[in-house]
Amino acid sequence: MNELTINGARLWQSLMDLARIGATAKGGVCRLALTDLDKQGRDLVVSWAKEAGLSITTDKIGNVFMRRAGKNNALAPVVCGSHIDTQPTGGKFDGNYGVLAGLEVVRTLNDKGIETEAPIEVVFWTNEEGSRFVPVMMGSGVFAGAFSLETAYAAKDTAGRTVQGELERIGYVGSEEPGKHPIGAYFEAHIEQGPVLEDADVTIGVVKGVLGLRWYDCVVHGMEAHAGPTPMPLRKDALQVATKIMQEVVAIAHRYPPYGRGTVGFVEVFPNSRNVIPGRVKFSIDLRNVDSERLDAMDREIREFIDSTSKATGLEITIQQVSYFAPCPFEQGCVDAVASGAKKFGYSSMDVVSGAGHDAVYMARLAPAGMIFIPCKDGISHNEIEDTRPEQVEAGCNVLLHAMLDRANRAG
Amino acid sequence: MNELTINGARLWQSLMDLARIGATAKGGVCRLALTDLDKQGRDLVVSWAKEAGLSITTDKIGNVFMRRAGKNNALAPVVCGSHIDTQPTGGKFDGNYGVLAGLEVVRTLNDKGIETEAPIEVVFWTNEEGSRFVPVMMGSGVFAGAFSLETAYAAKDTAGRTVQGELERIGYVGSEEPGKHPIGAYFEAHIEQGPVLEDADVTIGVVKGVLGLRWYDCVVHGMEAHAGPTPMPLRKDALQVATKIMQEVVAIAHRYPPYGRGTVGFVEVFPNSRNVIPGRVKFSIDLRNVDSERLDAMDREIREFIDSTSKATGLEITIQQVSYFAPCPFEQGCVDAVASGAKKFGYSSMDVVSGAGHDAVYMARLAPAGMIFIPCKDGISHNEIEDTRPEQVEAGCNVLLHAMLDRANRAG
Repeated sequence: MNELTINGARLWQSLMDLARIGATAKGGVCRLALTDLDKQGRDLVVSWAKEAGLSITTDKIGNVFMRRAGKNNALAPVVCGSHIDTQPTGGKFDGNYGVLAGLEVVRTLNDKGIETEAPIEVVFWTNEEGSRFVPVMMGSGVFAGAFSLETAYAAKDTAGRTVQGELERIGYVGSEEPGKHPIGAYFEAHIEQGPVLEDADVTIGVVKGVLGLRWYDCVVHGMEAHAGPTPMPLRKDALQVATKIMQEVVAIAHRYPPYGRGTVGFVEVFPNSRNVIPGRVKFSIDLRNVDSERLDAMDREIREFIDSTSKATGLEITIQQVSYFAPCPFEQGCVDAVASGAKKFGYSSMDVVSGAGHDAVYMARLAPAGMIFIPCKDGISHNEIEDTRPEQVEAGCNVLLHAMLDRANRAG
Repeated sequence: MNELTINGARLWQSLMDLARIGATAKGGVCRLALTDLDKQGRDLVVSWAKEAGLSITTDKIGNVFMRRAGKNNALAPVVCGSHIDTQPTGGKFDGNYGVLAGLEVVRTLNDKGIETEAPIEVVFWTNEEGSRFVPVMMGSGVFAGAFSLETAYAAKDTAGRTVQGELERIGYVGSEEPGKHPIGAYFEAHIEQGPVLEDADVTIGVVKGVLGLRWYDCVVHGMEAHAGPTPMPLRKDALQVATKIMQEVVAIAHRYPPYGRGTVGFVEVFPNSRNVIPGRVKFSIDLRNVDSERLDAMDREIREFIDSTSKATGLEITIQQVSYFAPCPFEQGCVDAVASGAKKFGYSSMDVVSGAGHDAVYMARLAPAGMIFIPCKDGISHNEIEDTRPEQVEAGCNVLLHAMLDRANRAG
């Protein structure tokens, strides 16, 4: 195999070096957006970028673009990246991997003296995690026009400090208008944050898209009554009706494989007393699928089931959609670039979808986009024990390198 | 119809008079055990008993026996009664009805100059409700030897005051040893506290017995995971498995009609977050039936279902019994006396069971016992809107009168 390869040891070392900033006793990282630690992390990555000869542009929401010039700098850059803020009990890889893999791509190109047609840029987006400030995916969201800079600036943490104030304090308010930066194509390498690749013993996940979701609140109204004196036929047991619906949520997801998901995560029973028949049950419904048609069909099925259950039981049941994100299919060219990158190296690979949101979802609104997943141990992320293997980290970065080269040179 | 009848208006008036002590703005009664109000209520009932020529005996736990002599005072008395303490948001009828119906029986016998073979007694038991001091059904429980006088004396309210201290304070510590008082037979008239009679439009419930119960805590152990990235086949969703069991609890009750009851009243989901697959679900199971054989069969069924569900899903499920009360069938002679009392007057009647505990359950350990139920509005009790109709109150008391006469004269 004579393919161009990145330096896996160097990438791993960079991941470990960045993970020292905000390192936790349990081996994780706590580096919340726009804290002093975030500033230290940003400064370190920017210093590495400068060492690699990249030029830096920061926009008004603190997104940082690190640019390696191409042969034809009139072309829109091929961009990769992710984020370097973490959850309070975050790990070393979520986000950081996508940024440092991009930096490793650049370092490799520098080592070999390779020039690309289009410029290449590595970006880190502000506050992807949303732990300290909501909305989540804030930097990429403002960039894509999902919400305004003013909305983002006004967001407060629990201590009442604003995004604007904290950005100013750490010195990351740039001059560029968010969204004015050209994006030719966008790639993001990321740990899977799920169990699929590990379960299938596959190295590279070719991400076809990000699942759309519909969130609902459902309330079943029964009548509370003493559990002893009330015979079964005279009951209006809200929980018994609610559990039928909870079962159906999962059954619906199974009817839309392989990417259908149905989850009831939250349940509140009133009055929640051992010997009282529940009079009211409120619970959440989370439905996801990879395309709008299937997600809409799942929506119809749960609504029809609730209607017919209400009629059959005589109990009032309300369902209210509280959140909606459309499915985000990635551009086929980018998906193919990832797949052929994996094939070049003989890595085992499979088509996957992302169940969680990523900055790439917002980028897909603006430009062809794609993602590369690598396995993470036990499918666990947002946890200090989040882990992945050096050879997988290396493999994902090799795929990123070739996908970006493919795209950057195709442009020429 | 030339049957001997009680004075319904007088009984109703007594109920309303007693309900003034501790009356609440919403039309209910708050007269907690061993408070000043309880003393006032006790004093009023005792004064009525003395006016009716009854002799008073109080035992060491404050149970008060009010005796009308018979022709043969060597015979054990035929006793009726209930309690006059209430829930904090209690009504006018729960307990009070059974005591004042007994007093009305005595007044009627006095009016007509009727002598019975065996003596007749009316009793009110201390602290049936258990709102202020636990255990519930304290006076009858000590009397029946279910727990000791010392245990009852040591019980404290939330302010740290003991049963013994409060009994002394209100002057209701008698000299008789609890349980030393002879009981020839025991009847208790009571509002149903359930919806069965009202639903069937029936006046008299012939109570066959009190349901036994088994209470359990059940815990399903799954694995929490993000709702998005985790495909359906790789989930260990504790709630989905728990809801199968919750459905089965109700299904089992339906398989043991007409007195089987199955209730899940309490549910706790961990971590109870909208987009996290539940990792652990704890819930209560309440199974009841009228005889031990059927209750034991229900117990076997739920345990077998949990075993097979655990095997089928691979999830650990624990079930632990946390409470058991044996079913309490009433003596057939007493049940028949109630049924024939209803028949005499042409009242509509039906066999019922009590789903809730009553002092009669403890009396059934010591002597033949029976209960008479009358409907209560919407099946509601332990609530200030608790209500029943004067003609139903009168009917139940007429049945009580004849059941007691039957028993008291049969003895002769």
